Amino acid sequence: MNWKVYLAGEIHSDWRQQIMEGVQVAGLPVVFSSAVTDHQASDAAGDVLGDQERSFGRDHQSAKVNAIRTRTLIQTCDLGVIRFGDQYKQWNAAFDAGYFAALGKPYISLHSEDHVHPLKEVDAAALAWAQTTEQVVEVLKYVVRE
Amino acid sequence: MNWKVYLAGEIHSDWRQQIMEGVQVAGLPVVFSSAVTDHQASDAAGDVLGDQERSFGRDHQSAKVNAIRTRTLIQTCDLGVIRFGDQYKQWNAAFDAGYFAALGKPYISLHSEDHVHPLKEVDAAALAWAQTTEQVVEVLKYVVRE
Amino acid sequence: MNWKVYLAGEIHSDWRQQIMEGVQVAGLPVVFSSAVTDHQASDAAGDVLGDQERSFGRDHQSAKVNAIRTRTLIQTCDLGVIRFGDQYKQWNAAFDAGYFAALGKPYISLHSEDHVHPLKEVDAAALAWAQTTEQVVEVLKYVVRE
Amino acid sequence: MNWKVYLAGEIHSDWRQQIMEGVQVAGLPVVFSSAVTDHQASDAAGDVLGDQERSFGRDHQSAKVNAIRTRTLIQTCDLGVIRFGDQYKQWNAAFDAGYFAALGKPYISLHSEDHVHPLKEVDAAALAWAQTTEQVVEVLKYVVRE
Amino acid sequence: MNWKVYLAGEIHSDWRQQIMEGVQVAGLPVVFSSAVTDHQASDAAGDVLGDQERSFGRDHQSAKVNAIRTRTLIQTCDLGVIRFGDQYKQWNAAFDAGYFAALGKPYISLHSEDHVHPLKEVDAAALAWAQTTEQVVEVLKYVVRE
Amino acid sequence: MNWKVYLAGEIHSDWRQQIMEGVQVAGLPVVFSSAVTDHQASDAAGDVLGDQERSFGRDHQSAKVNAIRTRTLIQTCDLGVIRFGDQYKQWNAAFDAGYFAALGKPYISLHSEDHVHPLKEVDAAALAWAQTTEQVVEVLKYVVRE
Amino acid sequence: MNWKVYLAGEIHSDWRQQIMEGVQVAGLPVVFSSAVTDHQASDAAGDVLGDQERSFGRDHQSAKVNAIRTRTLIQTCDLGVIRFGDQYKQWNAAFDAGYFAALGKPYISLHSEDHVHPLKEVDAAALAWAQTTEQVVEVLKYVVRE
Amino acid sequence: MNWKVYLAGEIHSDWRQQIMEGVQVAGLPVVFSSAVTDHQASDAAGDVLGDQERSFGRDHQSAKVNAIRTRTLIQTCDLGVIRFGDQYKQWNAAFDAGYFAALGKPYISLHSEDHVHPLKEVDAAALAWAQTTEQVVEVLKYVVRE
Repeated sequence: MNWKVYLAGEIHSDWRQQIMEGVQVAGLPVVFSSAVTDHQASDAAGDVLGDQERSFGRDHQSAKVNAIRTRTLIQTCDLGVIRFGDQYKQWNAAFDAGYFAALGKPYISLHSEDHVHPLKEVDAAALAWAQTTEQVVEVLKYVVRE
Repeated sequence: MNWKVYLAGEIHSDWRQQIMEGVQVAGLPVVFSSAVTDHQASDAAGDVLGDQERSFGRDHQSAKVNAIRTRTLIQTCDLGVIRFGDQYKQWNAAFDAGYFAALGKPYISLHSEDHVHPLKEVDAAALAWAQTTEQVVEVLKYVVRE
Repeated sequence: MNWKVYLAGEIHSDWRQQIMEGVQVAGLPVVFSSAVTDHQASDAAGDVLGDQERSFGRDHQSAKVNAIRTRTLIQTCDLGVIRFGDQYKQWNAAFDAGYFAALGKPYISLHSEDHVHPLKEVDAAALAWAQTTEQVVEVLKYVVRE
Repeated sequence: MNWKVYLAGEIHSDWRQQIMEGVQVAGLPVVFSSAVTDHQASDAAGDVLGDQERSFGRDHQSAKVNAIRTRTLIQTCDLGVIRFGDQYKQWNAAFDAGYFAALGKPYISLHSEDHVHPLKEVDAAALAWAQTTEQVVEVLKYVVRE
Repeated sequence: MNWKVYLAGEIHSDWRQQIMEGVQVAGLPVVFSSAVTDHQASDAAGDVLGDQERSFGRDHQSAKVNAIRTRTLIQTCDLGVIRFGDQYKQWNAAFDAGYFAALGKPYISLHSEDHVHPLKEVDAAALAWAQTTEQVVEVLKYVVRE
Repeated sequence: MNWKVYLAGEIHSDWRQQIMEGVQVAGLPVVFSSAVTDHQASDAAGDVLGDQERSFGRDHQSAKVNAIRTRTLIQTCDLGVIRFGDQYKQWNAAFDAGYFAALGKPYISLHSEDHVHPLKEVDAAALAWAQTTEQVVEVLKYVVRE
Repeated sequence: MNWKVYLAGEIHSDWRQQIMEGVQVAGLPVVFSSAVTDHQASDAAGDVLGDQERSFGRDHQSAKVNAIRTRTLIQTCDLGVIRFGDQYKQWNAAFDAGYFAALGKPYISLHSEDHVHPLKEVDAAALAWAQTTEQVVEVLKYVVRE
Repeated sequence: MNWKVYLAGEIHSDWRQQIMEGVQVAGLPVVFSSAVTDHQASDAAGDVLGDQERSFGRDHQSAKVNAIRTRTLIQTCDLGVIRFGDQYKQWNAAFDAGYFAALGKPYISLHSEDHVHPLKEVDAAALAWAQTTEQVVEVLKYVVRE
């Protein structure tokens, strides 16, 4: 069995690469997916559908095109890792966490101790809270062992 | 039919009261619910279950007790209003939005134009974006008219 | 038991009134609901949320506000009556029929013999095809009899 | 991952071929399905099951045989493209849109600006509105990128 | 709590009355529902919708009108009692049993020892097999006790 | 795509073989499954689990072991063909039809004109009624065409 | 809103009465339900359906009659309290916990510190672990506050 | 078709190996999965996520990491075998049984006659009760036969 892991959240650090490399080194039967993580491409995802005068329109159009991708990937994955970094609002990461929770799909939250209090609802619905990508890889090793 | 409306998000302004008053003035058949909005009580929700040495433990315990309440109320409501204010991380509000979205349950987002970009995923799954509580009341008037 | 019947489709004739009156005369335990059937109000449903430069924006905003109402009513009703008149595109009526079908919720289609061919998919998923409101009332009499 | 895309709606223009060719040129991991698009075969789908005296009977029988195919394909696809052309009632396309919407399955609507108003409910539940097949191909390129 | 009990199957003996009387004597908080049990009315349920040349058409039309009633009642009941008598094919009773089973809804089968072998699939999915209406009443007494 | 077709019902004629051969001759991408059709083996399915004094016990034990197989196969198939022959009670076939119906899974009923009346509920929930295995093969040809 | 609380598990101490009294003293809008807690009656629940030679048969018959009651009550409650005492196997309590968990329905586990290790799976899926009935009452006070 | 069988429960005897060997000898198309059965590793599953002062914390953390694995495997398997041995509380086995039951997924219970009474709820929801691993293998042979 190949485990499908969806990597949600922060796009400004290389945490996805770290997890993928750790998993590759360990030779685990895991395949990864995520939203498009190229920030500019993501913001422009809907531009091909026509100009929008107000920024709300453009964001709306792009966010929906992104949703075509992300909802399908979330609904078909086995588990998620949801990363909160130190910058920006990151409401999309929390939104994804709520989405996983309502589907009853397991996820691991990944964030520093600094965010324990504001993320308490996100952590309460998670099956693990990790602070480093190494910990995530260790958990994956355990979870998928034959 | 009484419409059940769940009010999620910000607890540091009186937006809930404004909506409730507007609805009362209009005489609409709406009943409201929400998480416990007393911040201190909410943080201490799980304290009766025993002390926790680390702050993670306390937050975790309380967030889960809060979830007993909020999941039931969200799952039985007809629609949500999810408010984002100008302060704090408010990840729980975004988490609730994702929860509504995954359940296919309609919600109205309520926030100023400043947050349009970081809330684009939240707004993409919403059925309306309002900037004032008056707008929410007007939408409710329309939605529930006999 | 009160049967909840949702009346979808045409808003340019008085078919809803005819069914309601027939049901009232018969004294049946039926409560009705429907989308807002005031055409102008329906098209303007989202206007309170702000101006939209393009007509797509205005229609989009209003259609979503209407959806807050109609999805809830469809999901909580016991059966639907979906009416196709002789004018206009009426794609919203066919959309509602598909929505009922996917939910596995019973509906009666109501249209003249002229539309049998283009409505064959809609009729294939219906549990009855009626041509007059009298027939609908007769079916309701049968369905809800104590 | 192969993305499964269901192409619904108009059968009197070559929009399906255009999308398939665009996807093939781009080398995307997409497989397509659709209802049987041979009009005569579709109308006769149930004829093997016996003659029907009234046209309603024939249409009904064929529409149901078609439904054996289309419901399975819609339920197992990842997303839909739903096309409205300039001719005919096309109620089956709107029916399919409602079916996708009730399943919470993403779809792209494809139609000219002329139909914005009558299709507002269909567009309100869509995750993108495209006016050309080139736009659909561009969206697919974005959605399925590795 | 009022328990909703659906009584399915045989319409040629007074087993429904026996159960209702037993429940009334015991003063249990139970409300009953069932298909329309007037055989002639049931066969003619769809006749108001127009004549059908072949008997298949008439039966089909009536069976669907009956389904509007029975599916709703089955889906909203708490448990079923499914009765098999000694005469006729009674495939509709077995059909209802399968419907209950697939919904995961509990039912009691009610039939004599003679039918144990041909009803083994029906009984395997039942939560009780009763041979007399008195037994059904006794089970209901137990199940609904405060 | 391989279509998974479940063949339910009669085990005393070679209708399954006829359909399989017709499909093979036509080269259709269809895989078949069914309950164990060896009557004696089916009745003895649970015997390995221990003796049962009463016939009810033996039938019950075997019917449940059969259900391990049949429920899984029904839930994972794409469509069913449900056959009623001229002999025996065949309540298990009607039970399977109800199971398909409650799951919203399409099925074709296969029986002679003699059974139209007693099978009207089964046919009302079917998407096609065939009288011969040739008709079933023709419908399958249409449904699965590339 | 009345909160429906299902009390599962131990039947040899008065923990149910303690919680009910605490809730009554506090005047909370809570209604309780549970399995039949009269041990002898519960073991004999199916006896009315006929004698069973082996103890397996009797237990089986009674457990199924009990399931008619308990599954309905669990599926319609808002939350559960699941109690583990110091005696007996109490596998039914753990079974109920798994049932709540798979339904995504919140529950509070109630047991002494001695059982922390063997109940770790049960507690991992719970939203609160209480050691005393007073704690349960306090949590309920918080959860249902207006 | 490969049948996916999840083996739950006792980890202190070699019953899993016995079933796997029996299946291998018979050449059945079955693939097995289970929780991690190395007791020490299982108890330490969450240790990588950080120390926990109280034993509750450690157990909780590990049980949740185990749940990432087991819930996914249970939800994707075709059937379960749930084993109760003679020692320990084994509440996790009963929890798994409840989880299978609520999902409507078939399982075989495997335990000696000694436990018939305390496991009556677990057995009432099972589709077979086996006392030996040989019996399980025989049932699997029957269930998966081509």
